Amino acid sequence: MSGLTHFDGKGDAHMVDVSAKAETDRIATAACHISMAPETFDIISQGRAKKGDVLSVARLAGIMGAKRTPDLIPLCHPLPIAKVAVDLTLDPDLPGVRVEATVKTTGRTGVEMEALTAAGIAALTIYDMAKAVDRAMQIDGLRVVLKDGGKSGRYEAV
Amino acid sequence: MSGLTHFDGKGDAHMVDVSAKAETDRIATAACHISMAPETFDIISQGRAKKGDVLSVARLAGIMGAKRTPDLIPLCHPLPIAKVAVDLTLDPDLPGVRVEATVKTTGRTGVEMEALTAAGIAALTIYDMAKAVDRAMQIDGLRVVLKDGGKSGRYEAV
Amino acid sequence: MSGLTHFDGKGDAHMVDVSAKAETDRIATAACHISMAPETFDIISQGRAKKGDVLSVARLAGIMGAKRTPDLIPLCHPLPIAKVAVDLTLDPDLPGVRVEATVKTTGRTGVEMEALTAAGIAALTIYDMAKAVDRAMQIDGLRVVLKDGGKSGRYEAV
Amino acid sequence: MSGLTHFDGKGDAHMVDVSAKAETDRIATAACHISMAPETFDIISQGRAKKGDVLSVARLAGIMGAKRTPDLIPLCHPLPIAKVAVDLTLDPDLPGVRVEATVKTTGRTGVEMEALTAAGIAALTIYDMAKAVDRAMQIDGLRVVLKDGGKSGRYEAV
Amino acid sequence: MSGLTHFDGKGDAHMVDVSAKAETDRIATAACHISMAPETFDIISQGRAKKGDVLSVARLAGIMGAKRTPDLIPLCHPLPIAKVAVDLTLDPDLPGVRVEATVKTTGRTGVEMEALTAAGIAALTIYDMAKAVDRAMQIDGLRVVLKDGGKSGRYEAV
Amino acid sequence: MSGLTHFDGKGDAHMVDVSAKAETDRIATAACHISMAPETFDIISQGRAKKGDVLSVARLAGIMGAKRTPDLIPLCHPLPIAKVAVDLTLDPDLPGVRVEATVKTTGRTGVEMEALTAAGIAALTIYDMAKAVDRAMQIDGLRVVLKDGGKSGRYEAV
Repeated sequence: MSGLTHFDGKGDAHMVDVSAKAETDRIATAACHISMAPETFDIISQGRAKKGDVLSVARLAGIMGAKRTPDLIPLCHPLPIAKVAVDLTLDPDLPGVRVEATVKTTGRTGVEMEALTAAGIAALTIYDMAKAVDRAMQIDGLRVVLKDGGKSGRYEAV
Repeated sequence: MSGLTHFDGKGDAHMVDVSAKAETDRIATAACHISMAPETFDIISQGRAKKGDVLSVARLAGIMGAKRTPDLIPLCHPLPIAKVAVDLTLDPDLPGVRVEATVKTTGRTGVEMEALTAAGIAALTIYDMAKAVDRAMQIDGLRVVLKDGGKSGRYEAV
Repeated sequence: MSGLTHFDGKGDAHMVDVSAKAETDRIATAACHISMAPETFDIISQGRAKKGDVLSVARLAGIMGAKRTPDLIPLCHPLPIAKVAVDLTLDPDLPGVRVEATVKTTGRTGVEMEALTAAGIAALTIYDMAKAVDRAMQIDGLRVVLKDGGKSGRYEAV
Repeated sequence: MSGLTHFDGKGDAHMVDVSAKAETDRIATAACHISMAPETFDIISQGRAKKGDVLSVARLAGIMGAKRTPDLIPLCHPLPIAKVAVDLTLDPDLPGVRVEATVKTTGRTGVEMEALTAAGIAALTIYDMAKAVDRAMQIDGLRVVLKDGGKSGRYEAV
Repeated sequence: MSGLTHFDGKGDAHMVDVSAKAETDRIATAACHISMAPETFDIISQGRAKKGDVLSVARLAGIMGAKRTPDLIPLCHPLPIAKVAVDLTLDPDLPGVRVEATVKTTGRTGVEMEALTAAGIAALTIYDMAKAVDRAMQIDGLRVVLKDGGKSGRYEAV
Repeated sequence: MSGLTHFDGKGDAHMVDVSAKAETDRIATAACHISMAPETFDIISQGRAKKGDVLSVARLAGIMGAKRTPDLIPLCHPLPIAKVAVDLTLDPDLPGVRVEATVKTTGRTGVEMEALTAAGIAALTIYDMAKAVDRAMQIDGLRVVLKDGGKSGRYEAV
């Protein structure tokens, strides 16, 4: 299957051999957002100022989720993650929360999946924490916005 | 923080006490979709008929991801999952893949997070398997479409 | 080895058969404290009022750690945890933080190990977050303070 | 929050970027002890000579626990652990068991948390194995006793 | 695909719905053996009498492995394991070690996979511990020898 | 215990110190086979051509299992796996399936255990998927067939 590196010549799935690739500094940033009812947004926003901070829990879940990526994505290589940051921004125009996750490594393959997993798990954790008041929240726009390092070079979402 | 059950009276996060809730049959269905370039869609569609099936790998990742939910979502209860099914449909109109995950349990709390995690991980796995040919794929519409069982009753997305 | 139920008649370790025990409501509370330099205590205390809350991260780590107990303690049974709460109190007299973790289940064996693991992991997380300013912090007094439910009845530390 | 590297400029938790740090040989030793009733100590001591060895189980749990550290401590980096040793010494003066865990790596950040986790899990496993005869056992003195390698140099507990 | 319950009507893999099955007491026993050079057998046998017991480590690995079964076998249900015992017998006629693992649960599906995983992981751990002196060890005869409980009734290997 | 490197001078289990070993390219291949009734073989073979492919699920389980090796084998070092391939061949002469797993890394210790774990988990997954029609399947011949890289040089099974 031309182009899909996760399949070998016979069409069977495998974890691609990266042993001949150079260990280079790599970075990836992924983003998504979760939309909610205005009342839900107000409850979460108020917690930001006081105690009981939904965003702190979601940020931590995203960071820890990045470390579980090779357990979750079948053909993903385990990597020595060097940095994870998850930025959460309250956006009254959604209304909801914008999520951006950045992961760095020095390794033989990229960290897009780690960044996407971190962003996705952070957003799902917001859903979990607010679902008692709002079941109709929705996560959209989960994608890679930046990738750099490695042979394939820099990619930025337009 | 009124309504957010994952915080106690002091505003501190906790895992809610469900020991007084009844063990009932519960079901949840979550959905999302991943959009891609027409060329990527063609490559994945061809694999569906032949060997090297992207959708088979993603389906399995979603099923296994559902089982990891309490490891990923900090305040989620571990549950004896009774069923997981992940349906993946090629949709030429996106173009891309529609994901629907259904989880059942007989337990003291619902399985929305398990269904959402299964759907999200399945979509992320499609991203992983096709990212060598298309970095701009995007996941949208990750939400609960059905929930039933338990005290709060049936919920269906409109 | 008389009394040590985790060994069989030949002296070999095994996971004790609990299938004949009744499913009852069980609770356990464990406690410990971490002592630190007064300057470290001040830094952590200030974060309590503002953002960057060490205690929030530690609380979450303790809750998630409780769920990992059967992965960590070799002969521990997996249990459907019904509640986890981790209380963290700044104590200027130590100076340091007092940790108390409570776990509930409806199951065939107790949750002392889950409570002890939650308390221990919460304290270790405080160490991790403050170790850049204080390597000499120390965790003491990790013990079960309350256990109830099950055939052996109520236990309270004196 | 000055000094606490696990928070960024906004006070949000993150996993610190270590990609610019050198890969160096690092070592850390952590210690703790568990105290018990004299009768419990006698039972465990006798098993040391015969079969049914509590200390063997605890040692293995500590070694395996070191490998789970990044799953447990939220902001801890995953590291390629090069060595784990857990020494357990029966001390009739406590009476109880002294635990010392040493971890080595060649990496970009230290292994104090791995050593502390190994020591703590080993002690908790002793509690688990003897709790049927003694609920009042207590773990104290969990701390780093030695750390070397990396920019911050050697640390030894006084 | 008639008879293979892990596939649905369309031929897609799923985790079978067991929610309508009764919670009954279930047991399974699996066995295997590992053969080795006579010199390797002698080294392991001597450790049995003294310290440094290969079999103790393997037994514990098998018990812990049983608990990881739903993480390893994709379509396996998570179950509340009630008992795990791993018996290891030195057999000079192989020469090598015979492994027998028994798992019990009270649940909606059987524990054959847990017993097979426990036996397999115990044997692999023996391989790991002795591979420095013998690379040619081999594991054979991994199979279910007994299964009981549940609708399909008792099965015993002939 | 002379030769068994997983025990120290006192006979206690430890994770061997590999920090002084060179990072070299290493490869290992392990194999096994699972035998079954002719009817079971026919069902699995037919799925190979159509949908509902038992072998695809088993292959993926083996690849993911390789990544879990340090969680399963107590004294195994965590390694940055660079490649995993699991080849499954239908063999009508058994009748059954032949499994061969190859793992590569650039690290300080070998990947035999990862290859053996991948092969074993793939075979166990075949058992799981076909056990509804055939309980008497059996796994044999689980062994290392090739190992290369590192100080001890090349090993090939005869």
